[in-house]
Amino acid sequence: MTLITEMRTLLTVITEAAVEELLVRDLDKLGVHAYTVSDARGRGSRGVRDATWKEVGNIRIEIICSRPLAEAALLHIQTRYFDNYAMVAYLHDVEILRPEKF
Amino acid sequence: MTLITEMRTLLTVITEAAVEELLVRDLDKLGVHAYTVSDARGRGSRGVRDATWKEVGNIRIEIICSRPLAEAALLHIQTRYFDNYAMVAYLHDVEILRPEKF
Amino acid sequence: MTLITEMRTLLTVITEAAVEELLVRDLDKLGVHAYTVSDARGRGSRGVRDATWKEVGNIRIEIICSRPLAEAALLHIQTRYFDNYAMVAYLHDVEILRPEKF
Repeated sequence: MTLITEMRTLLTVITEAAVEELLVRDLDKLGVHAYTVSDARGRGSRGVRDATWKEVGNIRIEIICSRPLAEAALLHIQTRYFDNYAMVAYLHDVEILRPEKF
Repeated sequence: MTLITEMRTLLTVITEAAVEELLVRDLDKLGVHAYTVSDARGRGSRGVRDATWKEVGNIRIEIICSRPLAEAALLHIQTRYFDNYAMVAYLHDVEILRPEKF
Repeated sequence: MTLITEMRTLLTVITEAAVEELLVRDLDKLGVHAYTVSDARGRGSRGVRDATWKEVGNIRIEIICSRPLAEAALLHIQTRYFDNYAMVAYLHDVEILRPEKF
């Protein structure tokens, strides 16, 4: 038995927990019907001189899909969410099995 | 001092929490003796018309190892688990230090 | 509207929860002012014959930044932490939007 993998795109979105339901409904309309979500904390400082760190409750949403769908989702996120929510989103390629599932 | 990295493969498995012990025992036999596990939630919809979302308790298992070992592990997972458990597995390359550890 | 992405480097550090504050202060001095942290468990066995598994409370710290900054951070981590703490660190490229933020 040999291992035959195919490439898909992993889209990761790290954002405020409050955005989850809204974002997921939008993604569903674009064709993203399954994802993994986990809890995270976002932290940032105002630079070395200001030792104050803010910590906020975040979620990480991960979606494996085709490159075109990942781009459509990211474009939508950029247009709809980036101005109003704390959000980081990034893409990279992964190798998967069972390509018909993604 | 310069930074000399080497490539290894990161294998990520997202699956039902109940599978952890079984899977880890199998991976250990294949030669995977260390891994990181974290909690996640898997969600999926039945499409836009049916607004019902299922949410299930998942775990994410991450293993950094050589490409051949990652492929052997993935092949085993495919053969042994894919038919009976909700499971997503994917590979991608990462750069690491201290290659003797992986 | 088109999607124009740029490459950045994702640095992931998995280590003991107790190191977080120390590490973050060091990273801040190097120029890393924002990151995501999540909880994880590290597990390892002593090999197939010894069925005893150790499980430890870990954190995963993720930083998206330029390649030079990721290398500087990884080099610092290697020099300062690898001998004294249980720590795994790895790099890989990701595509991001809003490059001015990273």
